[in-house]
Amino acid sequence: MSTPRIEPRTLKGFRDYLPPLMIPREHLLEKVRHVYRSYGYAPIDTPALEYTEILLGKGGEESDKLIYRFQDHGGRDVALRFDLTVPFARFAAQYINELGTPFKRYHMGPVWRGENTAHGRFREFWQCDFDTIGTTANAADIETALVIHDLMQALGFERFQVRVNNRLVLNGLLEELGLAQHAVALLRALDKLGKIGRDKVIAEMCERTAIGEEQAARVLTLATMEGSNEEILHRLEQEFGGNAKAAEGIRRLRQLVEVARATGISEERIHLDLSIARGLDYYTGTIYETFLGDMPDIGSVCSGGRYDNLAGLYTKQLLPGVGASLGLDRLLAAMEELHLLPKAATPAPVLVVQFSADRLADYQNMARRLRQAGIGVEVYPEAKKVGQQFQYAERRGHRLALIAGPDEFAQGVWKVKDLAQRAETTVEESAVLSAVRTALAGG
Amino acid sequence: MSTPRIEPRTLKGFRDYLPPLMIPREHLLEKVRHVYRSYGYAPIDTPALEYTEILLGKGGEESDKLIYRFQDHGGRDVALRFDLTVPFARFAAQYINELGTPFKRYHMGPVWRGENTAHGRFREFWQCDFDTIGTTANAADIETALVIHDLMQALGFERFQVRVNNRLVLNGLLEELGLAQHAVALLRALDKLGKIGRDKVIAEMCERTAIGEEQAARVLTLATMEGSNEEILHRLEQEFGGNAKAAEGIRRLRQLVEVARATGISEERIHLDLSIARGLDYYTGTIYETFLGDMPDIGSVCSGGRYDNLAGLYTKQLLPGVGASLGLDRLLAAMEELHLLPKAATPAPVLVVQFSADRLADYQNMARRLRQAGIGVEVYPEAKKVGQQFQYAERRGHRLALIAGPDEFAQGVWKVKDLAQRAETTVEESAVLSAVRTALAGG
Repeated sequence: MSTPRIEPRTLKGFRDYLPPLMIPREHLLEKVRHVYRSYGYAPIDTPALEYTEILLGKGGEESDKLIYRFQDHGGRDVALRFDLTVPFARFAAQYINELGTPFKRYHMGPVWRGENTAHGRFREFWQCDFDTIGTTANAADIETALVIHDLMQALGFERFQVRVNNRLVLNGLLEELGLAQHAVALLRALDKLGKIGRDKVIAEMCERTAIGEEQAARVLTLATMEGSNEEILHRLEQEFGGNAKAAEGIRRLRQLVEVARATGISEERIHLDLSIARGLDYYTGTIYETFLGDMPDIGSVCSGGRYDNLAGLYTKQLLPGVGASLGLDRLLAAMEELHLLPKAATPAPVLVVQFSADRLADYQNMARRLRQAGIGVEVYPEAKKVGQQFQYAERRGHRLALIAGPDEFAQGVWKVKDLAQRAETTVEESAVLSAVRTALAGG
Repeated sequence: MSTPRIEPRTLKGFRDYLPPLMIPREHLLEKVRHVYRSYGYAPIDTPALEYTEILLGKGGEESDKLIYRFQDHGGRDVALRFDLTVPFARFAAQYINELGTPFKRYHMGPVWRGENTAHGRFREFWQCDFDTIGTTANAADIETALVIHDLMQALGFERFQVRVNNRLVLNGLLEELGLAQHAVALLRALDKLGKIGRDKVIAEMCERTAIGEEQAARVLTLATMEGSNEEILHRLEQEFGGNAKAAEGIRRLRQLVEVARATGISEERIHLDLSIARGLDYYTGTIYETFLGDMPDIGSVCSGGRYDNLAGLYTKQLLPGVGASLGLDRLLAAMEELHLLPKAATPAPVLVVQFSADRLADYQNMARRLRQAGIGVEVYPEAKKVGQQFQYAERRGHRLALIAGPDEFAQGVWKVKDLAQRAETTVEESAVLSAVRTALAGG
């Protein structure tokens, strides 16, 4: 009597990570972690499950459809986190006295959203957030731009642009145009520029507010002004420097541009862009979006901004801050689609062939010596035909094979085979490590 | 009108990780990942949510109370994974033709169990599993013991013991004693030896089976035989070598012991222990448990074994394998309780003090130079009093502070302050990197 089999499958919108995708994912996560740590951001983690009330607030039915929500065994109304910002707000409210301010943290982990799975969107994906809270200092805003820059560089992108703006500039500019009361609707429309284009943004601006097409076009022309960072700052100072809000925003952007320049970052990589608006009302100061020259269609891969108060839902303590979020899995999926990922299915570059079953101790001993020198080494588990073991090595993406049978053991030598170049050399046992190092360095 | 505030809190049985706990957790995960990769295990990931049917099988109500199970928006019966073995079985059934055999994978991630929260058990915790599937070769069993050994060493433990046994030996031994039909009940009782002690195990053996106290005591005496690995093997060969099952188990254990010895691992660290039984019927060959000399009370921190068929629920393809699981968060909680964790709340050893607000570019520039040399550096975001910045640095656990004000900039020098030793030196700007390196190396 055998139980009928269950079809092995994942839920719609969820995916498995096989080694050729998981190896680069781990690599990217490691790079991101390294950049955050290098700036002194400290890691935290929070539970995947929280009280629904914590995640949605007491009203919040709007996001309700998007979240995985249920009753646990104790009858509690719980849900899976849908981002890392809300748990961080709860976390900050709970521990800020213990943590002290300023507090810099990063948080990398999965989030879940029951959203539409069109356009390659997944229902489980990793985010990598970093924030500095408890300070309004522009130094933190500037550092945020530097961190995003370093992230993109560490992830191996040559062509990218961190676009920076400031809500105070946008709001001051709208004030000067007499449009302050329409700010929310106008900025929401502006935020769609990259997706829907100029004409539709103007149409939406007119539709959502009482302003005419000419005024809408004027807003859009200002927001899309081009030029060097200095040219944009100069024009803003000339035209809007008299507005108090705009002046403060311009001052902060100028300092950011100056520090970026002083640390040797090119204009191309950190650039002012007044059309960056960010949809959320939450942001109140500097805002950031990041675009990749080779993947413009995936939109911003790292976005964020300054906010006045992180955790007002949970504490009366005012927690201003600034930060950004890297959409790691979205980036990875795009790299996969564009065939930008290496093909290896193993993290170990070397395979020790099992030629003689009774020599396992020698094989593991050699592997151990190389591992201690920091080189990943797999020992094939069975004494199959050498040809089959080579096929395995090629399929997996091992770069070198080490072979020793009775003849080699009698002579105290090993064969080192370069699998890509199909070249084989024979070296003394004591010289294997340096031969492997040389071969791997040359590849 | 302000919304009433929501009390910031986590669900019962769940916990937040603040930096002083998350920094060592990331460090441990990194060490574990490094060991797995060094042996050529490849990383995979699977979704947190799966069809309940996949996780529990078509019967499986027994585990039901333990799992977080609900209906998603599409009316699917779904649940959070409660271990990494079941998702791996589903994964293997689904992709084994694409992956090829043998297949070696590791998987590190959170699992969820709605279990009793007594004894510091959490409802969300990380597991780190590794397995080799698609081979019955003893080479894989041996490697599993080597990996566990290397894990413990990499995690920084001096005193640990990987205890190894083989189900075939236990079963052969029971056959020889005429107790084969009671094997399951006897081994389940034996498995509790560490927790309930000798007398209660004997009592349970008698209660669960028809055997007398004398026979139960004989089983226990055999299972707890002491001696060197060679002594135990010798005695087994003498007394049970005639039993086919036992002989195969003894042969496999002997080879394991010999390879461990040949690779220079001490008897103390990989040791035979016939009382290790593992509760699960699932295991059919070599079994492993791992105990820490400094934390014997937390039980085995890394356990596993050989099984005949991983994925019978989902595929007719036979997938034998061997592997083990490291309970990382349990280990971390124990280390926390025993004050074995370092205290730092920052991953960056250096703090650049913000003395003059208008010198931010210089501060970030210096930080950038050190970061490029691989040193983590935080720049304090506000030009507060230097004393306050030092207090911040001490609370966070920064080891060095770099200070430069108008006088230092005029002379082209920086002050390097060792915060623990309260010693301060002044060095040329060009010499800061080497001074920092020297100071950090000396700490």
